[in-house]
Parts: sequence; C-alpha cells; structure tokens
Amino acid sequence: MPEQSPLETAEGDPFGPHNLPYGVFSTADEPDRRRVGVRIGDHVLDAGAAAVALGSPYAALLARPGLDALMGAGRTAWRDVRRALTAWVTVPAHRPDIEPLLHPLATVTSHLPYEVADYVDFYASEHHATNVGRIFRPDGVALTPNWKHLPIGYHGRAGTVVVSGTDVVRPSGQRKAPADPAPVFGPSVKLDIEAEVGFVVGAPSRQGVPVPQSAFRDHVFGLCLLNDWSARDLQAWEYVPLGPFLGKSFATSVSAWVTPLEALDEARVAPPARTEPLLPYLDDSDEEEPGGFDLRISVSLNGQVISEPPFAGMYWTAAQQLAHMTVNGASLRTGDLFASGTVSGPERGERGSLLELTWNGTEPLDLPGGARTFLEDGDEITLTAWAPGPDGVRVGLGEVSGRIVPA
Amino acid sequence: MPEQSPLETAEGDPFGPHNLPYGVFSTADEPDRRRVGVRIGDHVLDAGAAAVALGSPYAALLARPGLDALMGAGRTAWRDVRRALTAWVTVPAHRPDIEPLLHPLATVTSHLPYEVADYVDFYASEHHATNVGRIFRPDGVALTPNWKHLPIGYHGRAGTVVVSGTDVVRPSGQRKAPADPAPVFGPSVKLDIEAEVGFVVGAPSRQGVPVPQSAFRDHVFGLCLLNDWSARDLQAWEYVPLGPFLGKSFATSVSAWVTPLEALDEARVAPPARTEPLLPYLDDSDEEEPGGFDLRISVSLNGQVISEPPFAGMYWTAAQQLAHMTVNGASLRTGDLFASGTVSGPERGERGSLLELTWNGTEPLDLPGGARTFLEDGDEITLTAWAPGPDGVRVGLGEVSGRIVPA
Repeated sequence: MPEQSPLETAEGDPFGPHNLPYGVFSTADEPDRRRVGVRIGDHVLDAGAAAVALGSPYAALLARPGLDALMGAGRTAWRDVRRALTAWVTVPAHRPDIEPLLHPLATVTSHLPYEVADYVDFYASEHHATNVGRIFRPDGVALTPNWKHLPIGYHGRAGTVVVSGTDVVRPSGQRKAPADPAPVFGPSVKLDIEAEVGFVVGAPSRQGVPVPQSAFRDHVFGLCLLNDWSARDLQAWEYVPLGPFLGKSFATSVSAWVTPLEALDEARVAPPARTEPLLPYLDDSDEEEPGGFDLRISVSLNGQVISEPPFAGMYWTAAQQLAHMTVNGASLRTGDLFASGTVSGPERGERGSLLELTWNGTEPLDLPGGARTFLEDGDEITLTAWAPGPDGVRVGLGEVSGRIVPA
Repeated sequence: MPEQSPLETAEGDPFGPHNLPYGVFSTADEPDRRRVGVRIGDHVLDAGAAAVALGSPYAALLARPGLDALMGAGRTAWRDVRRALTAWVTVPAHRPDIEPLLHPLATVTSHLPYEVADYVDFYASEHHATNVGRIFRPDGVALTPNWKHLPIGYHGRAGTVVVSGTDVVRPSGQRKAPADPAPVFGPSVKLDIEAEVGFVVGAPSRQGVPVPQSAFRDHVFGLCLLNDWSARDLQAWEYVPLGPFLGKSFATSVSAWVTPLEALDEARVAPPARTEPLLPYLDDSDEEEPGGFDLRISVSLNGQVISEPPFAGMYWTAAQQLAHMTVNGASLRTGDLFASGTVSGPERGERGSLLELTWNGTEPLDLPGGARTFLEDGDEITLTAWAPGPDGVRVGLGEVSGRIVPA
C-alpha cells in the first residue's frame, strides 16, 4: 500500500485546499533563504519553487523572499494565483512535481511575511469600548459621543510588529496611580493582551483619493490574527490627550499565515444593526456583500482557554474602517496593516483582554496554575480562530502566540 | 578673468562647506534616476558620482537612489563621509573632478530622501501645549498632569509623508460643533499648519533594548523641517479617546535636505529649566552636551512672514524624546522620523500654528491678501530655518513648502 500523499488532507481539515493561506518560511538547511509558502494540511508548499517547476508565469510573484510582490499585484492576480495553487495541490497529474516541494510544518521557521508599512489599530467592538470606558472613565459615559459615528482608530508602531512565536520582553515605563504624588518607573505590572483580527493591504492607493467600501476587495489581500500587547499601567498615565503610545508600541504579534479574502467567502455576515444613522461614506446598508466576518476566536493562557471572542458581533466592519482611514485622502501602501481592535462579545467568557476578563484586576481568573489578573513572566498567550467554509468545512486562521520574558 | 567656481560660495552663505546637507535629486535629463545629492551654495553635488570619480570607498553608501544605506551605516561612517565630502568641495585639487558633477539647485527635482519607517509626532513646546489646552479644553487645566513628566507623543502615518513642494489636497472628513445634533461631512474648514523640526533616525536598535539619551548621536542622522498639516475640525471631533488620526494623516511635509547633526554643533543649547523632577531615563542634567538646538524658524503664508517660532525654548529635547520612545523596548529602524511637535514661543508672533496665531479663528491675521484664519485653497505655506554655525556663519536648514489644492 503506497504511503498517503500529504496533499490528501483529511476530510474536514481546516487547512485543506479550500483555505491555502500564505506565509514566508525558511528551512533548517537554508535558514537565510526566505521563501513564499502556502499551507496545505500540516505541510508548507514552497510556492515559488512550485511555480518554477511547473513553468508558471506566477513565478515572478511567488519566487520571492516575501509576499510583497504578490500583495502588490492586485485582485485579479490574487484570484489567478489562487486558482493555480488550487490546481497544483489538487490535480493528481501535478503530484510528482509538487510533493517534493512540501515541507512538514513542524520543520520550518516562519517569518513576518511582508514588510509592515503603516499599522493602524481600530476600536470596533461596542462591548470592548463600553467595558474599557467603564473601567478607565468610571465617572463619564462609557462610549464617547463620536463612537457610533466613526470607527475610532489610531496609528501604532509598524516596526515592532513581530511574527507568532517571537518572545515579548515585558516593557518598562512610567505609571502613576491617581493617588500617587508622582509617577514611578519600572516594568509594567499590568501587562495585557488584545485579541484582534488584522487586515493586510495589498494594492496601494493614491494620496488624495479616498477608497470607498465597495473597493474593499480591490485593496485588502487577506486576514491574520493579531495580539496587540498592552501595558495598561503605562497606557493609563500617558494616553490623555494624544492616545496610546508606549503602552502599545513595544510589540504587536501577528499570525504567520495570511488567509486570502477569497477563502472566507462563506464567512461573510451582516454586522449588528446600527443604532445611529451613518454618513454616506460609512453607510453599508446597500453594499453588495455583508461587511462582517464570522470568525470564532479562542484565547489560551498557558494552554487553558480563557475566552472565546466572537468576531461576527463587531460594530464596525473592515470595509468601513478602510473607507474611514482613507476618506481624508490618506493613501494605502502594500503592507499596510489595520486591526479590528479588541474583539469582545457580550458575555464575560467572550472578552478579548485581561483588562475586561478580570475587570482591571479586581476579579482574578481562577486558572490551574493559580489566580491570574495580568500576565506574569513566562506566560504564553495563543490566539486561534476558524471560520465557516464551503460545505460545512472550517477555514483555519492559524494562530498567533507569544511568551512574556522578564524586563 | 576666469568664471568663479560654484564651489567658492559667498562668505556667510548658509549652505557653505560648514553645512553640507544631504538630499536625493533627479535631473530633467534623467527624471527616473534618483541620486544622493549634497547641497553646496546654490548647487547640488552628485555625491555618488563624485565618490566614484575620486575612487572613494564611500561610493557604496553614496552611489545609491536614496539615503538609506548611508543612514544605516552609523555614526563613524557619517563622520568619515562628511570629512570626505568637505575635502571634495574645498580642496582645489579636486575641482576638475567635482565641478562637472554640480547641478544648479534650480534645475533639479528633489525627492523624499529616505523611506520613512515609523513616524512619531511629539508635543514638546510648553507654550503650544498650553495654548492648545486653553483652546480645546477651556474648562480644564491647560497642561494635562503627565505633560511635565514625559514627552507626550503618538504615531502618525508614515506613508503620507511628502517632500517639500508637493501639493496638499484639502482633506475631507467628519466634523461636529458641540451645538450640532450630529456630525456633518465635507472638506475641512479649519485646515492648519504645525511648524516643527524632524529628527531622522539612521542607525537601528534592537527590540527590547532601550536607547539612552547618551546614545542620541549614535542613532540620529540629522534634522529636517516639517509641517504637520492639521485639520482642526476633524481632529476636535475624533481625537477622544485614542488621539489624532484623520485630522493629521492626510499629509506631512518635510524639507528636501537633511542637515547632519555635526553641522549643528554650535547650535546646541540648554533646554529651559525643568519645573518638575524627572525620572532618571529623562533626566538630562548630567548629559555631556546640552540637548536643545538654537534653530530660528520662519513661517510664511503666501510669501508673508506670519511667525518666527524659536526652537531653543522647547521643553523636551530630541534626546529625551528618543529615550522615551524606546524605554519600553520599542526598536528603531533606519528611516524612523520623529518630530518635535509644534514650535511655539511665548509671544504671539512666535506661535507655530494658525490655531494659536488666530486663537481658533477668533483673531484673524491681517494679511496683504485679506484677513486669514485658517488656510484657503491656493495658499502656500513655507517654513525656513537657520542655526548659528562656526565663526558666526549661519547654518541653513532649507525650507519646507506646500500649497493647498481644493478637495
């Protein structure tokens, strides 16, 4: 009996040929040679080598050290390359060429798959924004007056976006409790996570020309998982009046695999009903496809699931965020990354940050390793997610994980 | 009588051989060929061609389409290249090689001289922060409680930084006056400038490792002038709680010439006396050289000088900003740009924004073209600056200009 081909993924495998996420990897033999990979089951296809072996015209986009060329090539190229890849991993005649170019996932090293241009973080979950408002501004209204009128966002630090698996050094900085006479300096004592979904821009746009919601698929290449590590004590002291800075800029982790938009066609859902009328550029009541994504996220701390935030309930969609981010004429570049903001659902077990899960440390989580409020050194956080795919099969969004090392 | 060499700049020329700022230019003959240039008087030296012609080892850093290689090479290389350049433009024996490689400044096109990695904007003038606090938060204290304890900053959009001379399209977006029932959409009606100084990072740093003030010269390559265009109406409605976003992200203009730190040795001055004790990483009382820069900025609107902001009075220095930006472990990349924040002095004629100059439009400027509150379409803003140099000669910082075109 012949050995089963790695291309014959098990029925229901969330990384079957319906998914085909992109990444960049190197092997132990050639650690400095980065190559574009496509995940199939528990293997990675060297996509550039496959294109060359099969004489594909897409070698120019795939035989590269990063995804930037493919990302910048635009929607038609994305569709055509995905069609080609689907054929390469499913048509039996290609097997003799393709199989030797598969690497077991466990044997490769993943790298940041593209150079992050600008990184923008939004604040799109009404449940999260309400929780944070109640915790940080107990004397004010939970949602600021602008929240239902525009997707609030801010720029983060692109240079400290790291790939899943990278250790995160506990940041130091200033903190000051309201009762303290002056700020003190030291390692953060309220180190937190934010479970988010990132959207990766492929095709650029021109400065001065807004990108409407209807052009979402022309510019957004795919999705990743994102953990926006946050030092709550640093953030609380610094963020008035110009927003978060050092409380966020030390590290942001992203999953190694970028899921193409096309793999998530079955996951599109309508966002929640809007409770305030929207200005025309944000109104999505007449958009061709629903703007939401039904992604089920799971957050684990040292292997224990602590939350399952539902992405489908996000108030603002990624298409609205894209339209807002560019309505003032700001341009897009290949590699721009914008994130949803913390994904929190209405239930306690659906909150996407420890700030909310422990209500700023006042309600510790009871975990096998002991009670936990914020992150301790050595803690490892892993986000995973899946979405409904064709024929009831799940689409896996991979994982983003990181471990805290001491300051 | 032989024609005078362009290398013999007039006595007192602010762009004499004591200055030698770097830029990137192309010529009308070869518009697509970008080259590193060094300004001398009213000419630009093709620095890469000069290095090649003279058999210099620095050709590897200078014969490039951008400054990135030189910037990333570090402080010793910066010093050595500057010494070589000084010799090339001053030693008569080099003239036959150098003179043919000079282009009249008026005939070349300037380009953004490096790829902007992360862009951070600070808020370091006490006069500016006090004015803005009074205007935007009339019922609160002008300076937030953190202002004297840390240099407040936030990330801006790197992808929309443009070189001097680039037109700026008036941004559109949401605005809402407090009395309005709901926000309205349209072109900004409070388009403003912010006169700032930008610091360009050359040598990178490692994630997780802070950069102390004493390492300022190891990482910062040089200075530029920067206009942080601001739509005050968009900003006022959006900025609580996560800071400025669309009110700033449509465009930021920088001067075409980067002045090396070494050219400004005579301009170093002590910053104002600190009125609150500083945490050790920000304390600069024992630093080897004073952290301030005595730069005299001039702001013109359609050719009329409307303000002369003094940079020497900035409360927070660039070295403190660098130390703060990295104290949480955030890394530096070649091409990071951080800006001082609006430069405003104590006098009305020293304010660096129209917001302050016209007190949010309530005290219009009386200009030859008519009263002016905020910018009108067609308005051109130009910032220039100079600093004291050796032997009483000025060091010119060039200019950053931009014209508003209709939405």
